This record gives sequence, structure tokens and C-alpha cells, in this order.
Amino acid sequence: MPESSAIRDLGAFVAATTLDDIPPEVRHQARRTLLNFVAGALGAASDPTVAAAARVLGECTGRATVIGRGDRLEPMAASFVNAVASNLLDYDDTHLATVIHPGAPVAPPALALAETRALGGADLVLATALGVEVACRIGLSVSPEHYDRGWHITATCGVFGSAAASARLLGLDAEGVAHAIGIAASASSGLVENLASAAKNVGVGNAARNGLLAARLAAEGYAAAPTALEGRLGWARASGRPMDLEVLTGELGSRWELARNTYKPYPCGIVMHSVVDAGLALRAGLRDPLREVVDVEVAGDALLLARGDRAVTDERDARVSIHHCAAAALLWGAAGVREFGRERVMDAAVRTMRSRVRVALDASQPRGAARMTVRLAGGEVLETTVVHPKGSEAVPLSDAELEAKLRELAAYGGARCEPDAVIEAVWGLERAPSVAPLTALVAGR
Amino acid sequence: MPESSAIRDLGAFVAATTLDDIPPEVRHQARRTLLNFVAGALGAASDPTVAAAARVLGECTGRATVIGRGDRLEPMAASFVNAVASNLLDYDDTHLATVIHPGAPVAPPALALAETRALGGADLVLATALGVEVACRIGLSVSPEHYDRGWHITATCGVFGSAAASARLLGLDAEGVAHAIGIAASASSGLVENLASAAKNVGVGNAARNGLLAARLAAEGYAAAPTALEGRLGWARASGRPMDLEVLTGELGSRWELARNTYKPYPCGIVMHSVVDAGLALRAGLRDPLREVVDVEVAGDALLLARGDRAVTDERDARVSIHHCAAAALLWGAAGVREFGRERVMDAAVRTMRSRVRVALDASQPRGAARMTVRLAGGEVLETTVVHPKGSEAVPLSDAELEAKLRELAAYGGARCEPDAVIEAVWGLERAPSVAPLTALVAGR
Repeated sequence: MPESSAIRDLGAFVAATTLDDIPPEVRHQARRTLLNFVAGALGAASDPTVAAAARVLGECTGRATVIGRGDRLEPMAASFVNAVASNLLDYDDTHLATVIHPGAPVAPPALALAETRALGGADLVLATALGVEVACRIGLSVSPEHYDRGWHITATCGVFGSAAASARLLGLDAEGVAHAIGIAASASSGLVENLASAAKNVGVGNAARNGLLAARLAAEGYAAAPTALEGRLGWARASGRPMDLEVLTGELGSRWELARNTYKPYPCGIVMHSVVDAGLALRAGLRDPLREVVDVEVAGDALLLARGDRAVTDERDARVSIHHCAAAALLWGAAGVREFGRERVMDAAVRTMRSRVRVALDASQPRGAARMTVRLAGGEVLETTVVHPKGSEAVPLSDAELEAKLRELAAYGGARCEPDAVIEAVWGLERAPSVAPLTALVAGR
Repeated sequence: MPESSAIRDLGAFVAATTLDDIPPEVRHQARRTLLNFVAGALGAASDPTVAAAARVLGECTGRATVIGRGDRLEPMAASFVNAVASNLLDYDDTHLATVIHPGAPVAPPALALAETRALGGADLVLATALGVEVACRIGLSVSPEHYDRGWHITATCGVFGSAAASARLLGLDAEGVAHAIGIAASASSGLVENLASAAKNVGVGNAARNGLLAARLAAEGYAAAPTALEGRLGWARASGRPMDLEVLTGELGSRWELARNTYKPYPCGIVMHSVVDAGLALRAGLRDPLREVVDVEVAGDALLLARGDRAVTDERDARVSIHHCAAAALLWGAAGVREFGRERVMDAAVRTMRSRVRVALDASQPRGAARMTVRLAGGEVLETTVVHPKGSEAVPLSDAELEAKLRELAAYGGARCEPDAVIEAVWGLERAPSVAPLTALVAGR
């Protein structure tokens, strides 16, 4: 390998960093990422989509826990199912600068390896931190063009995070980690076009599963080109733009992208969160929304419109629909998993309310912002603009809110589970000599 | 789904086509593709790279045969190992218009499903034909820019062939096949930058394995966007250029890209084959090449130089090295698996001969051609130009030559195997009520 290359620099970082090198508040973000991952997976555990994934991958039996389902599968298979589950309800964590949801691709392989190789909770926290960091830094180095071209960045960059976390837990040296990341470059995939279909979840599941495979093959001596990422015919250029190597590795070990991870308060597309908050704010001034509201205009930038201006035919559409986000918040004053579940999405009242929502372009709105204007039957007009929605970097979810989210999801998913014990186990991971107590608590049966 | 879309049109074709719809000579190409696939996998069965893949995937035990190794794995796992093996020696089949090597990603999942679902040999031939056709047509619709940007087209398009072949063998209807192909779009990956490393084989293995997963998930109701391939944020545009939909689906069912599949006579990069043929031709005029040859110039177009002008440090380099291809042909008058094996690649005489080879750009040469000029110690100059190397569409390998290739590879790989019985079983597949006799013959122990 040459002296320096993108995968070599990342490999050295991943192989050398210890938990003590990571500031306490950044480590806490790794635990929050794990808590949010477990919450999402518990919430979707009984969903038919997850059940189908568990059937298809179920031929690969093994010793890694599938959250909330009691199955024990080979680690790659378990990683796929857990990643699909934790991503399914669109209730992920989000690194807003890249719009990567890093928990779903990174945490499942880390958990599966920590469990099956009898590693400690501190190993799991460290590997999660490093995997998230690698995924987000690679994503940032090609943003925003990468996503804008149609690459579902959670999947395309998640595979690097999975490879890095897995390589660390397999004990690879710097060169081994580098090869794992370089092999993962030949397994990077996922499309924005598929976002409103189950193919999205397959991309995220494959990121978790194929990153782990890359690391295991690297552990067996499989190699990649040193320039797999930044080379002339490498990942970054093939997928649309050269990497910014300064962004990729600048202040590595001192600037932590993981510190900027956020956690969704609503189970829908992250750019729709301002719409939800605007709807909830205006709801406070209404007594009977279905009768009072005549017309709703939601204005935002081109990204909001590109992602969210769609007809709703099922709950997948609802989770990326400006119309449903606005209608649910205005109608019910709530936007949790129930409001994005099939029954409520198909409800007659919310259909009517959705039909009153119009979407308008306002290029002056900053990314992630939304202005909502509601006209009432009596002629009154209510208006609010949300720039920093709840759960954003400016208004982060508190630990208590994250715990409440896990409780909500555990109840929604229906797996047998003591939410408070799960929460305690995750917060205490750095002191846990084994992850077995945690996996037992989330196995669900 | 809309009336017509790329995946829908391909889905209808794959679901509706029967073996009787395919001309006999095209069906014969499907059998040749299978024979070549089996040959390649037998040849690499005992290679350490394949052994490592078999270890990593070996946790997923099942009922699908790993060729030449006796292992029986879950179908996705077996597909990965068989695809890696059949691609490892660079002795593939080649669809020259796209430079896709379709056998490695398509045949393994087809064989694994035919075996584990107790299907007939005719099913295997049909699925292979349809999978190769889908892979090559999708590749052709984005060629040559797709490959030129850095996408290893065998892997990136192979996943579609795997999904199509698998979906057909799973009995999916037109819509199910369409979803399988659309899901595969979110699993398409593989990089030219990684071609000289084992990461290349991982890309090909993943194409086989992830295409099968896409089909199995489609069978469980997983869906993709109808416009997963040609949409604004879909596969083709994300990876660099819009699809030519006329190329994709024009004359579907009457024009067969499979008919243009070719089979390598030498285990090296396809663009190097003219170099080998030129060296073999000039070798005939030499008595003691190592003493006589002073200087060798190989001239070709930019693609030849881009792929083959490299220092040789190991046998992977040798397989994509103009220098080694020229040196081996001139020195030994042969270019088979032995001449590209580790021992001969590291041999002192061939190192010397390689050091005498220079590469020159001659943009007037057509793609795939090479001019070789050899200057001898006595001052004499020998020169030849090869435009259509052996194994190309113009000079196809005969069935007898393909059979000889299988015998050579079976002996090289060292698995217990009766080559003539294997050959007979492949030629007779369309009349075989089961593929079990074939898998028993190639299991190797």
C-alpha cells in the first residue's frame, strides 16, 4: 500500500483508537445511537416486512440475536434483519450534514459480532462510534452531490461503517481495516429512487450485511486497491464526484461527526420534521380541525418538495409525505408510530385532511425548514415557520425523550421486553463485561 | 406499476419466455456458458482465496453444492463461493460488447436454486439464458460510459442477471420478476479500481448472492420503484448516464445478446488476448526466446493500455498485465492456467522477459487489437498484428476447445472429478429431469 490513501488513513484511525481517546460526550452519542437502534428494531419486530426478511435469511441459523423475534441467526443474516427492522419505520438517527442514518447499517453487525465473539459492552460502544464516524466522514467527503445524484447515502456509506466497526471487533490491524473498507467500496449501493419501497430497506440491510462480509474476508487476507475510494476508477468518481480528502480525514480523532448525530422524534423522513412541528404548533389553536381547516399550504425548499410531495397509497408513502405529516399533526396533534401505522394512514378523516394540503416552493427557506399556512372556515389564517425542528442539532432530543421513544416502540412492536431494563443495559454498556445481558433483554421471547 | 417501465418490460419477458421460445443455437450458448462456469469453478476449487470464502460463508450450511469442495451451503452462500471461484482465474465467458462476464454472477444462483428446489436441467438452462440476457441488455443500455466511469460491469450488471434467473426459478410472475430486478438495482456495485485485488471477486460474488436475495425478497412481497432503473434518481443516472431504453428492450425475445457470449482461451483479461495470440504467433519463429529477444513493443488502444500496463508483483497482476501475457507467450509458447499460476509468474526467466516488454499507444488500433514488434539480438525484427483473437466473436472457441478447457481446469484444480462425465451432463441438461447428477459430478469429493 502507498504511504497514505483514504482507506489507509481510515484504517489506521480505526485500528488505533481506544475508548479513552473518545471524549465522554461523544461516547454518550454512541450509546444514544445504540439505544435508538434497539428502539427502532423493537418497534418493527412484528412487522410483516421484517418477518419476511427473517424467513428468507432464516436458513442461516447461528448465534446472533434478531431483536424482538427470538431468532438466532448467523451474524450476517442477523445483521440484515436487524438493519431492516431498525430502519423500517423511518424512526432512525440522522447525521444531518449528510442525511446518513448511521445506526441501522453500523449497529447490527457490531452487536452481532460482540455477541457471538463474547466481547464486552465497551467494545460494542467503541466499534459503533468508529463505524458511525467512518460512514459519516466518507459521506461528508462526497456531499451533497452524492445523495443528489440518487445514491441513498445511508446504504452507500453505511457499508463502510459496517466494515469499519466489524473490522475493529475482529481485531484487524490498520492494514486489515483498510482492506475491509476498500472491499466495502465494491459493495456500496442503494438508490433514492427506491426510497418509497421495501427495496430501500434491502439497501440498508445489505449495507450492514455486506460490510460485515468485507471485514471477515479482509480478516482472511482479502485485499482491496489502496485507492479504492479516491482512485481514478474508484468509488467516489464512479459514483459522481471526487472525494474531498481534507473533509474525509481532517482532524480525525479530534473532530467527531458522531457528536452531530441526532435522533428522530417522529417516524418519518427527516426533512418532513419541520412540517410536523409546524402542524403541532398550529394544532394548539384549533378545536375541531377536520371542520375548521379549509386549506393548508406547506412551503419549503426544493429538497423538501422533492422528497415529500407525493400521493399516499400506503404507510410507506405516508412516512415520506408532506401531506400526511401535516394532516396527522393538525388532525390528531400527534405524529408517533400509531399516526404512521397502516390503520391511521388509511383513516377517512386523515385522507380528507391530506386532500386539503398543498405544497409550494419557497427557495428562500433554509434546508430542513418549513412554513405552514392554514386557512380556516371562518376566514382566519394561521401561520408558523419552523427552521430547527425538534430532534435537530439545535434542539436535540434529551436522554429522557429518547428513553420515552424506546418505551413507545417496545410497546408498539409487541415483543416481550422490559423497556426500562433495556435502557439501563444500554446506558451501562461501557461497564458491561459482556453484551449477553443486553441481547437477552432485546431478544423478545 | 405504470404500464411500461424498464423493470416491468424485463419482468414480462423473463416470466413469459419458455425454452421453446429460444432458438436452439442460443440455448446451446446457455449450455456453453454453464460448461465454462463449471470449468472455471473446478479450476479454482482448491485456491486459498476460494477456501477463505468457503470458510467465511461456511457458517451458512445448507443443501447447495460448492463446486469442487464438497461443501453444501445455503444457496446464497454457495452462490457467493461458486461465483468467486469461477471468476478467480480470469478465465470467464465474455459478452464483448459490454465486457460483462455473465456466467459467474448468473450461473451460481441458478444452479443453487435448481439443485435445492429439485428443478430440472431445462429449468437451469432457461434461467441461465434469461439471466445472461437481462444482465447483458442492461449493461448494453449504459455502455460504454458505465464501465468507463469505473463500474466493474460484470458485478454491477451481474446482480440483475442473478435476480432475473433466480426470480424465474422461484416461479415469480411478471410483476414479481420486475420487483426482483428493481430491488437488485439497490444492490448493484463493483469497481474497476479494485480489479487487481480480491475485492473484485467479492463484487462478483456479491452480485450472485445479492441478486438471489433480491429475488427471494420479491417472492415474499418486497417491492421496488417501477422506475428503479431509468428514473431521475434511479440506477442508470446515479451511476453516470441515462439508459438507452431502445437498446434495453428492442427486439426482446428475437435479438439475443446471449448469442454473442464468448469464452476465453487464456486465463487473463480479455483485452490482453490479442497480445497472447501475437506472442504465440511470433514464438513460432524463435528457437531460444530468452537469449534471442532483446525488446518487445506491444501497441494498442487506450483501453488496452489502461487495463494492462502494470508492474507484476503477483499472479493477480499477471492476469491483467500486457507484460506477462507477451512474455509468457514468447517464452513458453503457452498461456494456460500454469503460465498464470504463482510459480511461473514468479519464475526468473519470465521476469527477465517481462522487463523487455514496452507498451505503446496506437490509437489507430481497433478495440481489442494488438500489434507486437519483437527485436532480436541479431537485429532482425518480427512483427504481427492481431485484430480478432482466438475466442472472440469472429474466431469463437469450438465446443471441443471448450471441453478441453474444462479438462485442463479440472486437472489444475485437483478436485476428484470425471471431466468427460461433467461435459456430458452439461450438454444433456435440457433432457435431464434433475440437476442432481450434475451437482454430484462437480461436488468433487
